[in-house]
Formats: sequence, structure tokens, C-alpha cells
Amino acid sequence: MRAIVVLVEPEYEENIGLIARVTKNFGFEDLWLVNPKANHLSDKAISRAMHASELLKNARIFSSLEEALSRADFSAATTAIASRDKNIERNAITPKELAENFKGTDAKLAIVFGRESRGLTNTELAKCDFIVNIPSSREYRTLNVSHAAAIILYELFMASGSRTIAVADQKTKETVVKLFETLAKRLKNIRNKKATTASFKHLVSRAPITKREANAVIAVLSELEKELKHTSKRK
Amino acid sequence: MRAIVVLVEPEYEENIGLIARVTKNFGFEDLWLVNPKANHLSDKAISRAMHASELLKNARIFSSLEEALSRADFSAATTAIASRDKNIERNAITPKELAENFKGTDAKLAIVFGRESRGLTNTELAKCDFIVNIPSSREYRTLNVSHAAAIILYELFMASGSRTIAVADQKTKETVVKLFETLAKRLKNIRNKKATTASFKHLVSRAPITKREANAVIAVLSELEKELKHTSKRK
Repeated sequence: MRAIVVLVEPEYEENIGLIARVTKNFGFEDLWLVNPKANHLSDKAISRAMHASELLKNARIFSSLEEALSRADFSAATTAIASRDKNIERNAITPKELAENFKGTDAKLAIVFGRESRGLTNTELAKCDFIVNIPSSREYRTLNVSHAAAIILYELFMASGSRTIAVADQKTKETVVKLFETLAKRLKNIRNKKATTASFKHLVSRAPITKREANAVIAVLSELEKELKHTSKRK
Repeated sequence: MRAIVVLVEPEYEENIGLIARVTKNFGFEDLWLVNPKANHLSDKAISRAMHASELLKNARIFSSLEEALSRADFSAATTAIASRDKNIERNAITPKELAENFKGTDAKLAIVFGRESRGLTNTELAKCDFIVNIPSSREYRTLNVSHAAAIILYELFMASGSRTIAVADQKTKETVVKLFETLAKRLKNIRNKKATTASFKHLVSRAPITKREANAVIAVLSELEKELKHTSKRK
């Protein structure tokens, strides 16, 4: 698994620098910035990065989250408030669960962190495959963003093994979800089609789904689609 | 277990503030400073502490490490370089091992962090009961002190409680797989039905599948089954 740290509109140079440092501390090297509001090449950012300033220099800049996510296989959004929107029909997972799920895979996993002031928007959360929440005290839930990054990258580092499992790429995963959605839409007794599809998407993202599993599901779902089409024609 | 964060001669206001914040994030409240070199009540320290500024105001100041340690039950020294002195006849433990060891005890455990510039001296390390080392990349071992604190306190917090996610029970999981299998069997173009079902079973077991996800999949698959039955009858 290759972790990519994605910061959405980071506001403080200090945090960008600290995050570059901890990314290198745990053996990762990709830092992607979406529409940054602070200068990642300032003296302050570089001083906080210490011996990881090359990560700041090599940082990739994107103008939208979609553009960044299209270059990763999976994406995990981080939030201090789990399931704050009931429309996002998914349970948040812990950093340890995230690490276990991606252990030994060859996935390019984007870990998405929001603005210091107000995190990620619901729209941004919905664009990611799943949500990671760091359990913390009810008295004061919200961690500094660089602390959140430190904990998640630490868990990913601790779980890193040598075995590599071939995970399905972004396109294959989309095909699986699309097929499921198409089928769900045809079924009049499935009331909340959106939530049903969201749950299925969560299932195939969280594991993450392997190439072999994706092929099995695609085979069955596409045959089912053909059969149903056949049925409609005869009606 | 009650964790006490002990900073030996901290040099940066920013780090003291960040550490106060993360101490509160993980439900602890004791911050002890040994001979601090930076002002823990400065505007900068207070701004980094965010909603944990009371920890800075209530911080206890000691003039020596011994004095501080005499008020705790156990002490764990943190260092980036494990066993750097052969005279310290002890192996370092990981944050997870530390958390496991003190889980469910009522010990007052001092976690001792050294100076940003050069950590703890060998003499200081020797005064502590044991040494904790955070595993990190060989390329760049040394974490920012507030990141080290975040990771250790996170592990202590994680060992103290348990969050519960409603996972699907064995029976529900079997229903999901059975439904998939039944559908796969009806499809003449699915050649290796056994392997296909095995892959699907693997997908729903590994995650593990939650109640919500299982219900979504059951809903769609059972509707598909009904539709197919309908088709056969008309044939």
C-alpha cells in the first residue's frame, strides 16, 4: 500500500511542514495539496518539515479534490465527527481498521485531510470511498490536523507487511458499483436506491475489493442485467 | 491508568501548546514541565492549545526530573533511538505494548519526553522504569515531539475503551452468500460458480460486513431472485 497524503485547502504553513515531516517519518513520500491557502514553500513550512523538505518541494498541486482522487485507487476522508450527515450512509472506520484493510495490498491510497478551521465539507466527504475517524475524548474531539496525520500514518506503517495483494483499480471498482446501481434502479421494491448503493460502495471500498473478487461480482451482476433486459423486451 | 505528560526542558512554545491539546484530546489532563526553556503561558502556546488552554494554566513545574517522577507510580521515557546505550540493559517497548501493559490498571504513569533538539540524556533515560520507542522509517527516525505524544496517548486511549460497530451476525452473512450463490447457479454463462461464490464470500467476510451493508445487499439480491423466478415461470 502506498499512502498519499492529500491536504484540502490547508491554512497554516506550520501544519503543512509538520505533515511533510511525519509523512517521511513513516516511510511515505507523496504530499498532494488541493487549492492550498498557505505557502508550502515558505521558510516556516520548510523549517517544520526538518529533514523532509524535499516532500514540500515535490508536492503536487491540484485545483480540485476530484482531480487528485482520480489519480489514486482508493480514498479515505478523515473527520472528527463520525457520520455527521445521515445522508452519508456509512460507518466511519478507525485508523487501525484502515491499516488492516489495506495491509499487504498494492493500492494507492489517498488519505484526505480537511481545512484546519472547518475540516471537509459533506460534499467532499461523499467523494471519498470511506471515512476514517480517530477515536478521541468526548470532552474535546478535534485533533490538530498534523496529529491526525501522524496517527493514521503510524497505523499504516505498523501494519505494513511484505505480501502484496492485487486490488481492483478505480475503473473496475466503478464498474462494480455502477452495475449494482443499475440493477437496484430497476427494482421497484428497493425504496432508498441511493442509500442501498452507498452501502454497497462502502462494502467494496472498505475491504478493499481485490481484482479476483471484482471480476466475480462483475460476472454475476452483468449476467443478471442481461437476463433482466431480456425479460423487459419480452414484456 | 492515568497518564501524566512530562516534558523535560521543552524549547518551543508551539510544541507545549500542541501537546496540551492532544493530551486533552485523549482524555488526560496532567501536564508537568521540568525546567521549561519556553513559556507555556505565552500567546503562541495558548493559541496552539486551542480548547485545552486550562492544561497549560494548571501545568505543574518541577526543577528536576527526579522530583517529578517521585510523584508518579511508573515512568516511561520516550526516545527515537532505541537502546542507544548498552549500559541501559533494557529493550525498548512499542506504544502498543505500553498501552497493553497498563490497560485497566489505576497506575499514575508518567510519559517522559525530551528536548526538541537532543531528546533525553542517558542519565535521564536511566531514571525511568522503561523506554518507549515509536517504530518509524530508517530514512528519518525522529518524530516531532508533539507527534510522538499524540501517538502514545492515542494508544493509551485506544486500550482504555472500545467502540462498537454493529457487524452482521453469522446468519445474516450466510444469507448474503447463499443468495449470491443461488443467483450465480441460475446463470448459465457463469462457468466456475464455486470459485465465483468463494470470491464473493471472501469479500463479505474480510471487511467484516456491517449490518447495514448486509441489508442493502440482501434487499437487492432477493429482489433479483424474485424477478428471475417470475421470468422462468413464464417460459
